[in-house]
Amino acid sequence: MTIKCSRCGYPASVEQKYSGLDLCLQCFEKQVERRFSRAVREYELIKPRERIGVAISGGKDSAALLYLIHDLSKKMPFTILPIIVDEGIETYRAKGIEKSRELCEMLGLELNVYSYKDNYGLSMDEIVARKQELKNELRVSGNCSYCGVFRKQLLNKAARELNCDKLALGHNLDDMAQTYLMNIMRNEPQRLNKFGLIIESSLEEFVPRIKPLAYIPEKETTLYCHAKKLPFYLGECPHSSEAFRGEIKDFLNALAEKHPGVKFSIVKSFSNLRTVDDKVYENKKCFECGEITSQLICKACLYKKEIIEGLSAN
Amino acid sequence: MTIKCSRCGYPASVEQKYSGLDLCLQCFEKQVERRFSRAVREYELIKPRERIGVAISGGKDSAALLYLIHDLSKKMPFTILPIIVDEGIETYRAKGIEKSRELCEMLGLELNVYSYKDNYGLSMDEIVARKQELKNELRVSGNCSYCGVFRKQLLNKAARELNCDKLALGHNLDDMAQTYLMNIMRNEPQRLNKFGLIIESSLEEFVPRIKPLAYIPEKETTLYCHAKKLPFYLGECPHSSEAFRGEIKDFLNALAEKHPGVKFSIVKSFSNLRTVDDKVYENKKCFECGEITSQLICKACLYKKEIIEGLSAN
Repeated sequence: MTIKCSRCGYPASVEQKYSGLDLCLQCFEKQVERRFSRAVREYELIKPRERIGVAISGGKDSAALLYLIHDLSKKMPFTILPIIVDEGIETYRAKGIEKSRELCEMLGLELNVYSYKDNYGLSMDEIVARKQELKNELRVSGNCSYCGVFRKQLLNKAARELNCDKLALGHNLDDMAQTYLMNIMRNEPQRLNKFGLIIESSLEEFVPRIKPLAYIPEKETTLYCHAKKLPFYLGECPHSSEAFRGEIKDFLNALAEKHPGVKFSIVKSFSNLRTVDDKVYENKKCFECGEITSQLICKACLYKKEIIEGLSAN
Repeated sequence: MTIKCSRCGYPASVEQKYSGLDLCLQCFEKQVERRFSRAVREYELIKPRERIGVAISGGKDSAALLYLIHDLSKKMPFTILPIIVDEGIETYRAKGIEKSRELCEMLGLELNVYSYKDNYGLSMDEIVARKQELKNELRVSGNCSYCGVFRKQLLNKAARELNCDKLALGHNLDDMAQTYLMNIMRNEPQRLNKFGLIIESSLEEFVPRIKPLAYIPEKETTLYCHAKKLPFYLGECPHSSEAFRGEIKDFLNALAEKHPGVKFSIVKSFSNLRTVDDKVYENKKCFECGEITSQLICKACLYKKEIIEGLSAN
């Protein structure tokens, strides 16, 4: 017997345990689009006539993000500026850039590329090699720590140079749930005060970051890309080393098998929580480079010193 | 080579990964006592001349709790009233009561016993049997749901009848971390607003509940009981069915193997979090029995109706 779509009665092809629905591909797509719109509406993520930077990587999440934002721009007038950061990771990033170009071409958008090499003098491959050399001399952090700091800063710089009002990121429901739990398990609850679907600051050098995919599970961004035939690349970064996130991810996936709504519950619960003092560590400008930081000197400058001059940042 | 105690240099017998310490039994005991005192001091859990009800079960946590509270009473004048709830679970509870009597005798305290049978007309064994009979007629909750509701209410009633200013519970660090995560994963963040080391209410019928063991890991309450040669019973309730808590517990234990401080981080983080509205559902008096509830009719009355009259409480 064919299972029918719970919405329209056509043959279903998506089984959704957490909602109890069976959906045909078309009704599934509509559901993704409604969730995206709900996030945008609830938190006023995008307003008419804004310039929206969209951070893309060639991966599935940001492909779905750019497509959905482009779709929204047919109903509301605003400008889209796709941005990709070229970390300089051979083969991996090259493929990502290729897929990003295809996607932008398909949507009639111009891609803006910002590279570590141009902006920091070293590619990620060179940073990893340099770290290997330095390993015996000083305690170096994991690769993702360096890359995360540089990428975040460069995306903000790019969005600012392109006069963006907001910068959209492809964080999905799974990413959000993992990050919330990681903050708690690292005893950094104050991070929750500024973590959410929109992150703002009093400094105008900081381009507010938005996360319109926060209500869409990871599996479904992939499925949406397939359904819409979007070009994307599923490769894994060769330098990746985020072990703790992997543990939390595996646990949540195992838990969701038995308790299908658990990721939604986590994201909803935490987005409603603040520390008792509700203190937010306000951004300042880095004493050295003028970029955004919560310290005197930004982490990117410290890491640059560490890698280039061999000084310990720890 | 013998490993030495990090504190006094004597041979160590306790390896503590989360603190990086090796401890001899005596220094370990002191550490437990300091953590207990810190919780009491930080949240003013016990004040001079108060009457402190102590909920005991015959198990390790409440044995350590009663011993530590008794120890504190040598330095500060207050009255201790040990209370045990007799749920009427053959063999299991009988052994718990026996061990509780031994402990009270050892400390020179009088034990107060309150039973389900006397107060609700049915023992837990009878409730479980009745649930089996009703299973085909209506959707019944898990055993722990019934027992939890009745025990909580009866403990409050007992503490009130004994004129207690506070009721001390044996929740340890692991219990706290599990409960915090369970609240989040069930999307009940508002429960955090009144969950913590001390729970109070504006209604004087509610005896404030305190949790002085919140900073002591489960393993260590057991070890402390052994060290102090306290009588306790390690049996498991034959009706127990808290599957979700078990999953969270296993995950946290596995995680703590690699990240030893993770339970402390969770408890510290969450005790600093509130929902944005910080709303607390104030207690009311049950329309039927006058006991504490957040609804019109308390859960215990609903469950009694369900079990005795065969009406669905769901």
